[in-house]
Amino acid sequence: MKKYCYGFVLIVSVAINIFLSINLYGGRVQYSEKKLMLQDVDLGWSKKAAAEAEAIAAMPCSGHGRAFVDSLISEGGQLICECYDCYSGNDCSVYSPVGCTVDAKSGDPIFMEPFWMQNAENSAVVISGWHRLGYWYDHGDTMSIELERHIRKLHSVVGNAVTEGRYVVFGIGAMQLLSAAIYALASENASSPSNVLATIPYYPMFEHQTVFFNGKAFNFEGDTKTWQSKNDTDGKDVIEFVTSPNNPDGALTEPVLKGKTIYDHAYYWPHYTPIPSPSDQEVMIFSMSKFTGHAGTRFGWAVIKDKSVYDKFLQYIQFADLGISKDTQLRVLKLLKVVLEGDGKSLFQYGYEKMSDRWEKLIPIFSNSKRFSLQKRQPSHCNFFNQTRLPTPAYAWVKCERPEDLDCGAILAAGNIIGSPGSNFRDKDRYTRLNILMSEDDFELLLQRLTELVSLENNSIQTM
Amino acid sequence: MKKYCYGFVLIVSVAINIFLSINLYGGRVQYSEKKLMLQDVDLGWSKKAAAEAEAIAAMPCSGHGRAFVDSLISEGGQLICECYDCYSGNDCSVYSPVGCTVDAKSGDPIFMEPFWMQNAENSAVVISGWHRLGYWYDHGDTMSIELERHIRKLHSVVGNAVTEGRYVVFGIGAMQLLSAAIYALASENASSPSNVLATIPYYPMFEHQTVFFNGKAFNFEGDTKTWQSKNDTDGKDVIEFVTSPNNPDGALTEPVLKGKTIYDHAYYWPHYTPIPSPSDQEVMIFSMSKFTGHAGTRFGWAVIKDKSVYDKFLQYIQFADLGISKDTQLRVLKLLKVVLEGDGKSLFQYGYEKMSDRWEKLIPIFSNSKRFSLQKRQPSHCNFFNQTRLPTPAYAWVKCERPEDLDCGAILAAGNIIGSPGSNFRDKDRYTRLNILMSEDDFELLLQRLTELVSLENNSIQTM
Repeated sequence: MKKYCYGFVLIVSVAINIFLSINLYGGRVQYSEKKLMLQDVDLGWSKKAAAEAEAIAAMPCSGHGRAFVDSLISEGGQLICECYDCYSGNDCSVYSPVGCTVDAKSGDPIFMEPFWMQNAENSAVVISGWHRLGYWYDHGDTMSIELERHIRKLHSVVGNAVTEGRYVVFGIGAMQLLSAAIYALASENASSPSNVLATIPYYPMFEHQTVFFNGKAFNFEGDTKTWQSKNDTDGKDVIEFVTSPNNPDGALTEPVLKGKTIYDHAYYWPHYTPIPSPSDQEVMIFSMSKFTGHAGTRFGWAVIKDKSVYDKFLQYIQFADLGISKDTQLRVLKLLKVVLEGDGKSLFQYGYEKMSDRWEKLIPIFSNSKRFSLQKRQPSHCNFFNQTRLPTPAYAWVKCERPEDLDCGAILAAGNIIGSPGSNFRDKDRYTRLNILMSEDDFELLLQRLTELVSLENNSIQTM
Repeated sequence: MKKYCYGFVLIVSVAINIFLSINLYGGRVQYSEKKLMLQDVDLGWSKKAAAEAEAIAAMPCSGHGRAFVDSLISEGGQLICECYDCYSGNDCSVYSPVGCTVDAKSGDPIFMEPFWMQNAENSAVVISGWHRLGYWYDHGDTMSIELERHIRKLHSVVGNAVTEGRYVVFGIGAMQLLSAAIYALASENASSPSNVLATIPYYPMFEHQTVFFNGKAFNFEGDTKTWQSKNDTDGKDVIEFVTSPNNPDGALTEPVLKGKTIYDHAYYWPHYTPIPSPSDQEVMIFSMSKFTGHAGTRFGWAVIKDKSVYDKFLQYIQFADLGISKDTQLRVLKLLKVVLEGDGKSLFQYGYEKMSDRWEKLIPIFSNSKRFSLQKRQPSHCNFFNQTRLPTPAYAWVKCERPEDLDCGAILAAGNIIGSPGSNFRDKDRYTRLNILMSEDDFELLLQRLTELVSLENNSIQTM
């Protein structure tokens, strides 16, 4: 149904069921939880950007990719689709399965894309050219109070962290906050720097960051197991990274040494693990990446018990970069509002169903194999879904069982699957981490490649 | 002119002169430089966010403040305006000039707000809920190629930096890149850490960062003048911060020591200084903050000559936070497209006229004073505007001339002006830095407070 007028744009009526509603009376904007009509708003300055965004979002990319407003433009002036693995061409119409590899190396959480497409209306954000030019919000801080309030509400709904009486600090993803945590907890006694440890297999960034930033107040000391056996912690300043659920293997973990702890809870969401109880640790770090799928948005937060530790986090953020982009904070606020709609379960239901489905498809493939195995999973009670369930980790932690298969990554690579080798996590290369958070297309390809590999099990495979 | 239909939104025609135009044919989006019609696009998922953004932007806030989509909401459910200094109330209608202070302490570049309001249409950005979930762009990097291309074009248009054959790295504002630069340039010889210096008066973050991150490979050694007199640089590894134009005093500066240099060019834009020639240094750092006014967006970039230094910058960004938010990169791209429209002069003309006007209003006030003086300004040729002109710095660097006025900040504070004391820049407190990039309202108030202060010059003033 189309009409044409000229020189102006007419929004006739936005009579949608909206919970966050706007009335315009004398220039005031009224928010309420009631269903009200958003009407009488003639769109002006925002319509061009909106039309551009919708036009680009509507590009079909043959169903095997998508285009973004900042995608590249071809020499012919055409926006280029960004294709899933094994598809190519400006519109992703060219399928080249032979010999093409499936990339399961990174932790890109593309599996959440359909959820956000289904919730397009409420998750869209329009940022004006003059949105928050200044460094500070009106209350004199670089962190949005509204956003902090939504984060606290989120943890209360999910039941995965205690936030009452705790401090919250925003960071550039969990990544920055892991580093901030080291600075916040490190020894102030220059003659005895803190010893930073983690338990193998561990997320490699702990080590990379601590070594790279090379502070005078801390040293990376590697695996906690070495220290346990030596009973080495007595009297020494220890900071232990505890990733729970663990990256790469998805296990709920506990600290093994006596000392200060940094809980990396990036995966402590109902998509991946039963939530037995709210975490109540000194320093807990969360992020958008694995929770809503917005890895590219680079937003995380720390929940902190102690005021002096909190103050050091703030100092770190101030000196590192003067805080998080206001654009990012606005977008995250919008996303959290969608997550918290209704009973606050729809995103987690989507995530858990998707992950369960993927594990249910992986298991039979590995059950047919004696060469490859997956990590064991134990059921436990999830308070959020109020049911006993298996963990559904973000990664398959694949073990090559044959004594001669010392380099599992190479064996998978020969089957056109790219994983992350065990040695990245300071474990044996007999293990490989496979990301299963990719797009549906890429996951189907991964299943196909794994099935091919297992079907070849009694034949010899070149191990490179 | 209003019409009403129900249950849908109808964009009738967007027949605006647009250079970046979109045609929809078979799902392809065609970009061209021609003026085309953006039509036949029925807005769907984006219209609610667009209507919300426009409704909030239209809040008048009595002309003395503004509201944002993420502003706080009152107990009565009403969005609260954020008011300029001395105005208060939910709609900024309450003016309380008596005894209220004008805040000229921070470097908030609010003076650019009207430019972006005038360019609302082309600077707006709509971000879908599924915009770039992944860590990487399609080319496997965390930095947008399109954005990098626009940054290079920008420098070519402005003529303030050589970028041909140089590398570009994005960071969280200039702030993060200053710290990254230290890591990138620091000594690899553990027994002789790099000596980091700057020339007083200098931007205090150089010192705060270097001391806080407390790396084993560098030490902050303070003022270059101490080393010059001692002829101390021979054989020592030196990294010198060169801020040009300088913060706080706006002078175009050169390094004074022999060694590696980090050029902070945050203010090297035609708003603030004549551009005599493109800068062609090893490491040059720019940011949006003082250039477009988007301090809150936290986006900067470094232009780097040497490949090995570039690689270390990349490593820093990877370990610090895995790169800049994709939302921020998209917004910055939109903003740069506006800056580069036409002959690429309109933003700079706006900025320079505004700054000239402010300096022209400041000068007569200080001319009437023997107690307070401003920094000297020397004219030079600006290649960008092709004229000889005075610098129009972002800050007034005020000196209290009376021998007894050792604490200039206190004297200004007694006159209800809050500045940043000279000692913040490791200079004497006889100096105070006053930001003159604030909103028009706040600047008018600053002029009024300064006028009052000068008019009291022959009387005694309480100094705190």
